[in-house]
Amino acid sequence: MLIGSIEAGGTKFVCAVGNEDYQVQDKISFPTTTPDETLAKTRDYFKQFQLDALGVASFGPIEIRKSSPKYGYVTNTPKAGWRDTNFIGQLKRTINVPMAWTTDVNGSAYGEYVMANLANEKLDSLVYYTIGTGVGAGAVIDGNFLGSAGHPEMGHTFVKRHPDDLQFKGVCPFHGDCLEGLVSGPTFEARLGQKGETVPADHPVWDIMAYYIAQAALQATLIIRPDKIVFGGGVVSPALLEKVRQQFTTLLNDYIELPPLSQYLVRPVVANNGSATLGNFALGYKELTR
Amino acid sequence: MLIGSIEAGGTKFVCAVGNEDYQVQDKISFPTTTPDETLAKTRDYFKQFQLDALGVASFGPIEIRKSSPKYGYVTNTPKAGWRDTNFIGQLKRTINVPMAWTTDVNGSAYGEYVMANLANEKLDSLVYYTIGTGVGAGAVIDGNFLGSAGHPEMGHTFVKRHPDDLQFKGVCPFHGDCLEGLVSGPTFEARLGQKGETVPADHPVWDIMAYYIAQAALQATLIIRPDKIVFGGGVVSPALLEKVRQQFTTLLNDYIELPPLSQYLVRPVVANNGSATLGNFALGYKELTR
Ligand SMILES: Nc1ncnc2c1ncn2[C@@H]1O[C@H](COP(=O)(O)OP(=O)(O)O)[C@@H](O)[C@H]1O
Ligand SMILES: Nc1ncnc2c1ncn2[C@@H]1O[C@H](COP(=O)(O)OP(=O)(O)O)[C@@H](O)[C@H]1O
Ligand SMILES: [Zn+2]
Ligand SMILES: [Zn+2]
Repeated sequence: MLIGSIEAGGTKFVCAVGNEDYQVQDKISFPTTTPDETLAKTRDYFKQFQLDALGVASFGPIEIRKSSPKYGYVTNTPKAGWRDTNFIGQLKRTINVPMAWTTDVNGSAYGEYVMANLANEKLDSLVYYTIGTGVGAGAVIDGNFLGSAGHPEMGHTFVKRHPDDLQFKGVCPFHGDCLEGLVSGPTFEARLGQKGETVPADHPVWDIMAYYIAQAALQATLIIRPDKIVFGGGVVSPALLEKVRQQFTTLLNDYIELPPLSQYLVRPVVANNGSATLGNFALGYKELTR
Repeated sequence: MLIGSIEAGGTKFVCAVGNEDYQVQDKISFPTTTPDETLAKTRDYFKQFQLDALGVASFGPIEIRKSSPKYGYVTNTPKAGWRDTNFIGQLKRTINVPMAWTTDVNGSAYGEYVMANLANEKLDSLVYYTIGTGVGAGAVIDGNFLGSAGHPEMGHTFVKRHPDDLQFKGVCPFHGDCLEGLVSGPTFEARLGQKGETVPADHPVWDIMAYYIAQAALQATLIIRPDKIVFGGGVVSPALLEKVRQQFTTLLNDYIELPPLSQYLVRPVVANNGSATLGNFALGYKELTR
């Protein structure tokens, strides 16, 4: 059996094929340019293979309601040229296999969920946050994605501001100081005029970041009550995550019982940003057996 | 067919019996005293009837995981005497019918969900907030409750503080200025030294309340993506809810598409706090047909 995966990011596409054991057999990556060019390249890539199913995880916002005439579209994205793109429709010109369609973060969430369960963690639910160029999250509950009217946009909730950060306006073009406006990668340039990669570990900005990310984890915890929260994306280093756990402990103040935070607030199990590819294999496979 | 309902609140218990059309046939209410006394009264009440099933919605926190040896317990509640009470166990001494067990707010959420669907609203999901003595919320998604590791505690997330309210420390004994600490009924006494009922409609505190409640609605919206959010509880008058809709519109800034807010952020359909009783009938009935 051969299952395809498309991880459609705002800067690059990653296409891969694998088998029902989620082993990657081939993988390529190319920059995201125009929809026509990028999706043609995608179709060309998969022409080489006899796919049985395909899982697609895309940047958003996307239409996920099967009842909508725009199911399979990237909708009102700020990404130039991609607004109202019939993503799945363009694939179907040449690819005629069952297809799963979800958000990039849902793809990653599903990959982490499947891997945890393969490793016998027995999770019923999992939330996956990415904190990178943007902030987003997906959630899997009993094998299904959270969100019926649309997919979650957890990166745009508001949080209590840190007392040492009150002057910072935030970088979200829609909301200013929503979560994404306060903790996405570009906030380092906005706050300090330098990239996050170059900020020393003892800089106070890390405590500010951890304070906000801990509140995001608290929102997901108290609203969804998941079994585990995974943090991917370039911003969340192990050192930052440890600070997040500390702030989370202080903020939660033992209000509910949770697993040890070293098992509850974690980095991805799948290395090298591979969660989504793996999740896509599993989602494609699921379409086949539906 | 006769279905029982127990709405176990921190100040009073409401017990009722109804039929499979959710019509109330008898109802009583008595103060919540000690667990032994209150649950004996409850058993006595139902002795009069030949129940087929029972739905129980209780104040919390409660244990809802069927796999737990404490399933059916009220757990670490601050309510005097009720910590670690085997609620369902005490009922089972004399009541031997299928029983549903969930939180008070889940019971209300389910009642609103069932009524909306009976009225042909075709909801897949609904969130019910109560803003009264405390703040809590429950969510129904495709007929099931949100929360696998435990039930939601949405009343204890943090929000961005209002610029005119920065001095107020909040009243939550666990978190200070979490949502409950900022918008529950007792915050009127804490902020103004008078009960909410007596505060004039043009007082600026209503804008502060609306700002926070709108952020709660935004968290639920962006995290769960429900079809509808219902606000019950003594604090949320129609006038306050209208202010909430205005603040919500400003904060969301058209980031996602939603139904008209007059249909999306609403008061309960069921009058006189009856949502939970009705939800309990439906949940009891569901146990029977499971
Ligand atoms: N070690 C780091 N510390 C803080 N920020 C980082 C670090 N490494 C990368 N970033 C920031 O993360 C963002 C990229 O996130 P990433 O998850 O790698 O990609 P994307 O979100 O675009 O898929 C950039 O803004 C980058 O500056
Ligand atoms: N019109 C009102 N405006 C503001 N607060 C109110 C109003 N009516 C009642 N309250 C407050 O709501 C709280 C009671 O909430 P309620 O939902 O009626 O009960 P409970 O949460 O205890 O079940 C009290 O703190 C009361 O002061
Ligand atoms: Zn935003
Ligand atoms: Zn609290």
